[in-house]
Amino acid sequence: MSIKISPFAPQKMKKINLIDGVNVSITHCGLKKNNKDDLVLIKFDKPSDIEGVFTNSKTPGEPIIWNKSIIKHGKVSAILINSGNANVFNGKSGRKSLINIVSSLEKILKVPRNEIYIASTGVIGVPLDEKKIIKKIPYLISNLKNDRDSWFLAAKAIMTTDTYPKIYSEAIKEKASMVINCIAKGSGMIAPNMATMLAFIFTNAEFKKKKFKKNFLDIVNKTFNSITVDGDTSTSDMVLFISVKNKSESSVSTNQKKLLLTLQNVMTEISEYIVKDGEGASKFIKISVEGAKKELDAKKVGYSVANSPLFKTAMAGSDANWGRIVMAVGKSGVDIDTKKLSIKFGKFTLLKNGEKFSSSNLKNIDKYLKKREIEMTINLGVGKKCWIIKTCDFTKKYISINTDYRS
Amino acid sequence: MSIKISPFAPQKMKKINLIDGVNVSITHCGLKKNNKDDLVLIKFDKPSDIEGVFTNSKTPGEPIIWNKSIIKHGKVSAILINSGNANVFNGKSGRKSLINIVSSLEKILKVPRNEIYIASTGVIGVPLDEKKIIKKIPYLISNLKNDRDSWFLAAKAIMTTDTYPKIYSEAIKEKASMVINCIAKGSGMIAPNMATMLAFIFTNAEFKKKKFKKNFLDIVNKTFNSITVDGDTSTSDMVLFISVKNKSESSVSTNQKKLLLTLQNVMTEISEYIVKDGEGASKFIKISVEGAKKELDAKKVGYSVANSPLFKTAMAGSDANWGRIVMAVGKSGVDIDTKKLSIKFGKFTLLKNGEKFSSSNLKNIDKYLKKREIEMTINLGVGKKCWIIKTCDFTKKYISINTDYRS
Repeated sequence: MSIKISPFAPQKMKKINLIDGVNVSITHCGLKKNNKDDLVLIKFDKPSDIEGVFTNSKTPGEPIIWNKSIIKHGKVSAILINSGNANVFNGKSGRKSLINIVSSLEKILKVPRNEIYIASTGVIGVPLDEKKIIKKIPYLISNLKNDRDSWFLAAKAIMTTDTYPKIYSEAIKEKASMVINCIAKGSGMIAPNMATMLAFIFTNAEFKKKKFKKNFLDIVNKTFNSITVDGDTSTSDMVLFISVKNKSESSVSTNQKKLLLTLQNVMTEISEYIVKDGEGASKFIKISVEGAKKELDAKKVGYSVANSPLFKTAMAGSDANWGRIVMAVGKSGVDIDTKKLSIKFGKFTLLKNGEKFSSSNLKNIDKYLKKREIEMTINLGVGKKCWIIKTCDFTKKYISINTDYRS
Repeated sequence: MSIKISPFAPQKMKKINLIDGVNVSITHCGLKKNNKDDLVLIKFDKPSDIEGVFTNSKTPGEPIIWNKSIIKHGKVSAILINSGNANVFNGKSGRKSLINIVSSLEKILKVPRNEIYIASTGVIGVPLDEKKIIKKIPYLISNLKNDRDSWFLAAKAIMTTDTYPKIYSEAIKEKASMVINCIAKGSGMIAPNMATMLAFIFTNAEFKKKKFKKNFLDIVNKTFNSITVDGDTSTSDMVLFISVKNKSESSVSTNQKKLLLTLQNVMTEISEYIVKDGEGASKFIKISVEGAKKELDAKKVGYSVANSPLFKTAMAGSDANWGRIVMAVGKSGVDIDTKKLSIKFGKFTLLKNGEKFSSSNLKNIDKYLKKREIEMTINLGVGKKCWIIKTCDFTKKYISINTDYRS
């Protein structure tokens, strides 16, 4: 089955700003077919500061278990990423494969093992032949580069069911120029056989470790944790954030507020790239839930609508089927005052304070829903909190991709 | 769009046993197109005992709000059911329509209003023209019958996206013959524009009110609350249980244990009818989760798998995609010891104590999965509790039915 590039793929890639002190190399080790690149090594000139967020899955992959065990140390010297095999649920052999890779990197790179991060994405439950990876380590080390092409090829090498590479960069001029780069992959919150959400964010700016973690988690919640394609959660999701140290071990000192704001921009862009590349997606839908008593209420309502197969199929059919929206709001578990509920598509009101829209508006909405990018606002009318969830529609193509996967 | 009858429709209807004291009439009032029956009146010779369970939706329909307000009284004289309009989210006019119908029935039938139950299923948010219903009440009253044909026609009249009527009867010979009958509708846990789960259960047996409620809820949990088509929850779901009083106000005194057992049989059958008529379903899947510490854990894991679009599409493709099962088990939120997890399809082991299946078994499983009815066992290996969830697969037809609905 051939998969076409998503209609949402960026027409033009934004220029990547290089960060001094981080080098990357890419190769093909045989985990993906057709000689496609499937292995990426990222090496830092000096041990750099790292923060990470990992999947909540109770059946996590080996890389997740490993990375979680070393994250407290807070330093990273190298990251090895492979696609084509997720090394999840391979019993004892899966653990052994991972340890062999780490030991090999430790020996050749001469860095402590608790500074070596591993990420794997691809099939679940197929033993990972780590020899294929280990054999390529010397080549990878000899080819480390810090140029634009390599970063683009790295973003491409970590793809699985993704239809386009996901890479984004922001630079802010202050005293010195602060840069934040991100490469990521994901085509759906997850398609566990061949997808996972991985995001690697690099900056030349220094960050205040103590305060940063909470702020970082907040941003992850507002970005990567506020998108959904099918409501499924990967065994291998991870987001790593690295403040790169260059050879002189210096990094750009910056206003932490500005760092966080820029980081949020980058993560917002990348998370939209992911949901727009959702399996079979023909529409991108931004659901703003406003007027809630608590942020959590707004998030619950947003997710309940965004994950409802009936809402998603209505969107695929450009159908202002507001009965399904009301149903999904109702099943969220959040207390709803139906007399205060309002719903809008774009600027067109569908429902105001629980009372019916005019049929002329319905015509406008029908037209609006034919667009590729749709904004919906649900106002609960009982408070001031809000949350935004982004999702895509549910099409026959999603079923094709996932039904015919092995055949 | 024409919808074919589900391949799971029973080849032969079970013979309905009549219950003395309950009468039914059916007509067409114009809420459904093409002169199809869309209105049912059920009238009891004497006020009968009633128990009910209603949707948890926070945006419930008017009939739900009404029935919940009178259920404490515990008596029923009449039930009026319409299809074609759910009377949900119609603002003040929806409430008024319902009250007008109740008042009209109260006046003509000369029974107290708190003994009149209303059920509506069909589109949401379209004002219910109650005059269509009220006009037909005299006709309905003059045509009340207690014969097999009428019960079958009643089951048919309450259908919406259902492809076959759902009716089931059990009779147990004791001193006297105890009968339990059920008519129901539902095609998916919900398709809120045109579906809802309604079930009406009648018995000639008496029940001990005090103890019964808890037992009834337990059975509802094990049957109607353990099926899922798309994870969506209707605004109008209800299950009513009525112990019918005939003219001499007598009912069959029976062993309560036997009553509950028979009731569970009837509700199991009817709930399977509903999930088998799930929109677009081509496979019926019974997921037994065993070896859990708590029943709730087993239920959570079962629902997490049963509602996973990736699992459901794998089943549609007859694909033993166990990565998706492991993913769905992992996202349930229940603590999992992956080294103790075992999975079987039919009698074929896919995974034992977290270790891989043999590839010969995989061949057997691939063959097994081509069957129309599939049994899967997930053993968590950490306790003795279990739960069974029943579901159907997720096909292109589901997307068609729900994408092209208005067009």
